[in-house]
Amino acid sequence: MKTAPNILALADALAHMDIGAAQMLLHELQSIDVAEALEQLPVESSSLILMQLPKRAKVYAAMHAAYQARLAQLLSRADLATIVTEMPADKRTDVFKALAPSEQVALLPALAQAKREDLRRLAEYQEGTAGAIMTSEYATLRAEMSIAEAIDFLRQEAPDAETIYESYIIDEQQQLLGEISLHQLILAPVDANVGALMATDIVYAYVDDDQDDVAKKIARYDLLALPIIDRQHRLVGIVTYDDAMDVASEEANEDFLKSAGVEASAPTLNLKQTPLFQLYKKRVFWLVILVFGSLLSGLGIAHFESIIESNIVLVFFLPLLVGSGGNAGSQSATLMVRALATGDVVLKDWLLLLGRECLVALALGVTMAMAVAVLGYIRGDAMVALVLILSMIGIVLIGSVIGMSLPFILNRLNLDPASASAPLVTSICDATGVVIYLCIAAQLLPQI
Amino acid sequence: MKTAPNILALADALAHMDIGAAQMLLHELQSIDVAEALEQLPVESSSLILMQLPKRAKVYAAMHAAYQARLAQLLSRADLATIVTEMPADKRTDVFKALAPSEQVALLPALAQAKREDLRRLAEYQEGTAGAIMTSEYATLRAEMSIAEAIDFLRQEAPDAETIYESYIIDEQQQLLGEISLHQLILAPVDANVGALMATDIVYAYVDDDQDDVAKKIARYDLLALPIIDRQHRLVGIVTYDDAMDVASEEANEDFLKSAGVEASAPTLNLKQTPLFQLYKKRVFWLVILVFGSLLSGLGIAHFESIIESNIVLVFFLPLLVGSGGNAGSQSATLMVRALATGDVVLKDWLLLLGRECLVALALGVTMAMAVAVLGYIRGDAMVALVLILSMIGIVLIGSVIGMSLPFILNRLNLDPASASAPLVTSICDATGVVIYLCIAAQLLPQI
Repeated sequence: MKTAPNILALADALAHMDIGAAQMLLHELQSIDVAEALEQLPVESSSLILMQLPKRAKVYAAMHAAYQARLAQLLSRADLATIVTEMPADKRTDVFKALAPSEQVALLPALAQAKREDLRRLAEYQEGTAGAIMTSEYATLRAEMSIAEAIDFLRQEAPDAETIYESYIIDEQQQLLGEISLHQLILAPVDANVGALMATDIVYAYVDDDQDDVAKKIARYDLLALPIIDRQHRLVGIVTYDDAMDVASEEANEDFLKSAGVEASAPTLNLKQTPLFQLYKKRVFWLVILVFGSLLSGLGIAHFESIIESNIVLVFFLPLLVGSGGNAGSQSATLMVRALATGDVVLKDWLLLLGRECLVALALGVTMAMAVAVLGYIRGDAMVALVLILSMIGIVLIGSVIGMSLPFILNRLNLDPASASAPLVTSICDATGVVIYLCIAAQLLPQI
Repeated sequence: MKTAPNILALADALAHMDIGAAQMLLHELQSIDVAEALEQLPVESSSLILMQLPKRAKVYAAMHAAYQARLAQLLSRADLATIVTEMPADKRTDVFKALAPSEQVALLPALAQAKREDLRRLAEYQEGTAGAIMTSEYATLRAEMSIAEAIDFLRQEAPDAETIYESYIIDEQQQLLGEISLHQLILAPVDANVGALMATDIVYAYVDDDQDDVAKKIARYDLLALPIIDRQHRLVGIVTYDDAMDVASEEANEDFLKSAGVEASAPTLNLKQTPLFQLYKKRVFWLVILVFGSLLSGLGIAHFESIIESNIVLVFFLPLLVGSGGNAGSQSATLMVRALATGDVVLKDWLLLLGRECLVALALGVTMAMAVAVLGYIRGDAMVALVLILSMIGIVLIGSVIGMSLPFILNRLNLDPASASAPLVTSICDATGVVIYLCIAAQLLPQI
């Protein structure tokens, strides 16, 4: 029952090719732990061990896509067909889609006809939609069944369905009529009728809905599984809570990386395994954009070159003032991006939030202005201190308003608000800050 | 079945106090939708409607903590006791903990003794641990039961348990021996023995484990529920997948806000409802710290004041060069914080990752250096272009290394790596960038 030491013992047994010891340990371990242990091995060794495992399909399904693909190339067509046949339909589709076209063509004839057709159909749904993450293996019942018949029916269907804890009631046209949980079935009198007990106020999603919306619905309504229907209201699949959890963590990851100007798209970046050129590509775009963004700040400075030459002390405070606007702005942007992503905030709240933000930013600006005023007086004089106070308040206020508004504007333009990344907001706020600071300085300080 | 229009109709009916229409609509809606509709109303109106609802406990449990607290003050002690008695044990504990001490004292005598003792026990676990999110209402079986007996037993216990899809087998000392799913029970021959069929390779957590680790285990092993045991290996509760999803999204939210230097701790910030002073407090700390951080850049500039006065063109490129280091650094830090949070990367990988990062950063630096070299030549001369090239490569390289290392160092010091927020990394990289840029300039450019 102590998982961690078992994994170490397994890795050791595998490294020494002690198959007997490995098999004993493998029996006690969870599939994902076995998968990770095998992934440490050369693909030639693990392909031999994999086929000996009773849980081979689950272990294979739990592996990373890259390792799966390397194994798929090595396994015989019959072995690969055996494994993917044993997998749940949604995982099977993922593996199939990751294969090279020539391998796909080779695999298909080795599958039973029903699986083959199911696989073709599931593989057609566009990535990122409900269809691409749903499984076609769900339990259905008829409204006219008695509870006893329904439980018997599930007993026979169970080995194939992804879950029997939620069953869906459909009519002859595959129209979704209701759902009933195994919990309800167990508690109900055996001679009652499924149709009388089923819930009809069902939460569902359409097959072309965004996968993120599917995950949100499952989390919001605490569902075990969400039925997926087509536009004719026919049941075509279900998405289970465990897949929804994966989607939610993938989306959170993407938003997080975007916030730092790293392009993120599935499959998620793995720092250890992603090729270096991929990492470079995902980061270079925003960095170069921001180089040109920073030129705006440079242009602001160039415009005010003479006031800087007359008061070189201004340069001392430049990074501080400009940075503060960027920091306050990226705070606002992050708060807003999160609020939009979690659905706490919708577009019509914008004016209310802007008003609140101005008050908070004003308080922040005044606090920070007090902190720098003293420094300005020490390094410069009272006039420099005044320039700093006014600039700081203005910069923090305007930076916050920019940070708060940018995600809204992007959302309005149907762009991902998470693209209002910290670096983008920072570079816009920087340029604005330079202009505010030097404008105020030009008004108040002497010029040669 | 069309949820969204129903919610609008409900809000309308409620606003006109059309109780008949509202009741019809309420019957068809999910608890969380009803909760949100009621939250739009003054607490006086919703308290009246709430008590009429058959699903009142579920609706109350789905409300935000602040609204729950206001309702709790308004409801009679008997009504509140009725509602919390009908709630699941974990939700009941959350409500109880949010009450003022005087209200807690008033509520306890109104509860049945068993609930009262259970509540006291659950409320004692520290926030953030498995104990604080677990429920004490789980289904247990004995190893010696037959399958038929077990299913009968669950039928009787079901109304109280949070889930009957996983049952836990314990001995007289409450020691956890195994688990069995309802799926297995349904499929098994009725005269078989629970002890013979139960799984003994159970994934579990300790009651004082971090709630984040609990959520990760549930996601990793695709569990419906995770048993929680004390240090004597006695079963004390379970955490279900839906609570794990809430924890995971809360933790992702916190990390996200920390990345922008916003202090985040449960309960999660709600931009619309959090008092303004709270928002101010959560943001001001890092902003003021960063003001002083930026002073480092200022000091760097002060040290090189004469080279700047001699070559005022350097100021034009200052925001660009310094910003690029900060941007590259915050990208690296974000990638690393995420990799540590998702467990993709562990401490011993540091040297490998640092090597990879240097190569990527070098490539990024060279790309960006080419972009600015042209500008340097146009605005200055060949020497200025050379200064820019060397500075850009050095700044991006060192910025990336800082961004990559800081989360590791924080982790090593047992601090939260997510505190290596973009603003913190940016301000350290900024100061380093200033020094690198002006040092190189001082070597290569003429000084008056």
